[in-house]
Amino acid sequence: MSIAVIYGGARQNGNTEQLTEYAIEGLQSEKIYLRDYHILPIDDQRHSERGFQDLGDDYNSVIKRVMAHDVLIFATPIYWYTMSGLMKNFVDRWTETLRDSEFPQFRQEMGSKKAFLIAVGGDEPHIKGLPLVLSFQHIMGYFGGKLDGYILGKGSKPGEILHDNAALTAAEQLRKKLSQNGN
Amino acid sequence: MSIAVIYGGARQNGNTEQLTEYAIEGLQSEKIYLRDYHILPIDDQRHSERGFQDLGDDYNSVIKRVMAHDVLIFATPIYWYTMSGLMKNFVDRWTETLRDSEFPQFRQEMGSKKAFLIAVGGDEPHIKGLPLVLSFQHIMGYFGGKLDGYILGKGSKPGEILHDNAALTAAEQLRKKLSQNGN
Amino acid sequence: MSIAVIYGGARQNGNTEQLTEYAIEGLQSEKIYLRDYHILPIDDQRHSERGFQDLGDDYNSVIKRVMAHDVLIFATPIYWYTMSGLMKNFVDRWTETLRDSEFPQFRQEMGSKKAFLIAVGGDEPHIKGLPLVLSFQHIMGYFGGKLDGYILGKGSKPGEILHDNAALTAAEQLRKKLSQNGN
Amino acid sequence: MSIAVIYGGARQNGNTEQLTEYAIEGLQSEKIYLRDYHILPIDDQRHSERGFQDLGDDYNSVIKRVMAHDVLIFATPIYWYTMSGLMKNFVDRWTETLRDSEFPQFRQEMGSKKAFLIAVGGDEPHIKGLPLVLSFQHIMGYFGGKLDGYILGKGSKPGEILHDNAALTAAEQLRKKLSQNGN
Repeated sequence: MSIAVIYGGARQNGNTEQLTEYAIEGLQSEKIYLRDYHILPIDDQRHSERGFQDLGDDYNSVIKRVMAHDVLIFATPIYWYTMSGLMKNFVDRWTETLRDSEFPQFRQEMGSKKAFLIAVGGDEPHIKGLPLVLSFQHIMGYFGGKLDGYILGKGSKPGEILHDNAALTAAEQLRKKLSQNGN
Repeated sequence: MSIAVIYGGARQNGNTEQLTEYAIEGLQSEKIYLRDYHILPIDDQRHSERGFQDLGDDYNSVIKRVMAHDVLIFATPIYWYTMSGLMKNFVDRWTETLRDSEFPQFRQEMGSKKAFLIAVGGDEPHIKGLPLVLSFQHIMGYFGGKLDGYILGKGSKPGEILHDNAALTAAEQLRKKLSQNGN
Repeated sequence: MSIAVIYGGARQNGNTEQLTEYAIEGLQSEKIYLRDYHILPIDDQRHSERGFQDLGDDYNSVIKRVMAHDVLIFATPIYWYTMSGLMKNFVDRWTETLRDSEFPQFRQEMGSKKAFLIAVGGDEPHIKGLPLVLSFQHIMGYFGGKLDGYILGKGSKPGEILHDNAALTAAEQLRKKLSQNGN
Repeated sequence: MSIAVIYGGARQNGNTEQLTEYAIEGLQSEKIYLRDYHILPIDDQRHSERGFQDLGDDYNSVIKRVMAHDVLIFATPIYWYTMSGLMKNFVDRWTETLRDSEFPQFRQEMGSKKAFLIAVGGDEPHIKGLPLVLSFQHIMGYFGGKLDGYILGKGSKPGEILHDNAALTAAEQLRKKLSQNGN
């Protein structure tokens, strides 16, 4: 079992990142900070004759790295009650990969991965973060998979998440689960 | 009463656009196609000393045009069970505007606008589009406002929305509502 | 195709009933007003040795009538942001029917029915009624089916629903759909 | 601070009860098992001339006991993706109490209480239990309050909840929170 963490936050070492780092402490993982890459919004060519064209940005190299792992942890701050635009642009591009001959098994492979969501927000995340959870459930459901778990944490100012004991405990439990799967 | 339509679709004349055009037929409105502008993901500087810096892209000019209107229609295709990345990046930047001295009344003004969502998707939009609706409800709620209405339509291939009679009727009813407000 | 309408409202001729009557005008249907029957809360005997015992109320005769139809319309007022207790007690008893040898095909049969929800409420039904929609989606999903459509209407005082043009139009469209299926 | 626990389960010592008992271990509380009382579905007389009439069942004595406490824990198994019919009938009757001169402050008092939800289900409770959470959020919101917290646990067979470590930990954290408030 190998883990990819996809970070959607705009701020280095933000609350979502701290919580996620705590969850994967001691586990091997490949960390991908989307803010470090140039990933354009999708140019929807589903219905054009020539189909999708390579946009020449970093998307393809990033998705290739993601697909090499069995467990995906989507770590996004809750921006405006759903995932960050950085994360959303990345996800939107999957529509392109679904039609990319370099990823002929994209759908099946995504459906067989374990997927977790870690999301921290400042405004009642346990209630107002639920649309985000439901979106990810539908996203993984599209591939025939499911969202295997999620952690919602509360934090706004830097470091605030470290006071959310419930979130920290949930992160420990996720870590335990991920290490057991590893055997 | 004046109307701004904010289009989040990547494809010209896509299903969401067609439905929205039908809803505003004969009404005066300012149409903003986000795909025609360069709008970067937010660079979260809420907690940095110097605060947000101008990213030098088109965001500020676009939000200025949006704020000049009383009614906002957010028209986004349902990409992966929530708004498009183009739309999300635009919304994310509001965090910056909330702290921008050029928009001292941003919060109150946004809270006093009428807001509508028009969203078309191919995969059970009336169920799987609900997280998107809930997100927008929370978004407008943040400003003390609310989502005044939404239309979910079904369509995937170009033009398919024109066969969704329920959505077309809802669009007509929205049009009627918007014209009455105009007096 | 034959239609059963299951009414969960406590009040005769309430808003939900008026909207539903409008939707099925001219169509043949069997109408079941749950308030006219004695249906006890479930006595959960899933895990007892002897299993479920007949509670001697009207439930079994009602579910038998329901199962005779291909299309189910669940018509419930939105009480406290979900279905009425009358409706919920009826649904809860399905757990019993799932284990009842008199209904050996209950699961498959329920999964093959068309299911619609009509629900009227006074407090932002298009937003605050969504948890009810999601519950019904999961309910039909349990059987391998789905919620084929829903209408949310706004009304509180008697007759108020007759001013909700959007709901009335949606009811007409449902009627058309149901009549076409009937051929 | 004093606690009322309202149990909506049909089965004695079911999973939801076990989890809740664990959460309130060592705390003083008044426990109300709705299945032990005769509580009729609401007879909606909001719009009749004479108004609500006493149904002569146990509802009034139960709500009186509930109102004597500052913290309400709603403990309901997830039956068919929302609260049990027993719980729902109890909640539905609040409509009556809102108009009952014996409870002139019902709305304000409910709005000032702390409210928690504990719910256990067998079928993906962390996803499919979310409509229940959203309903309770709206319910408490009606009074101007909010849902202060919730615990979703997984369990179907008797005792199964005792293997849901995440739920048990959340219960411990709720217990800690409730004891601190007590000082």
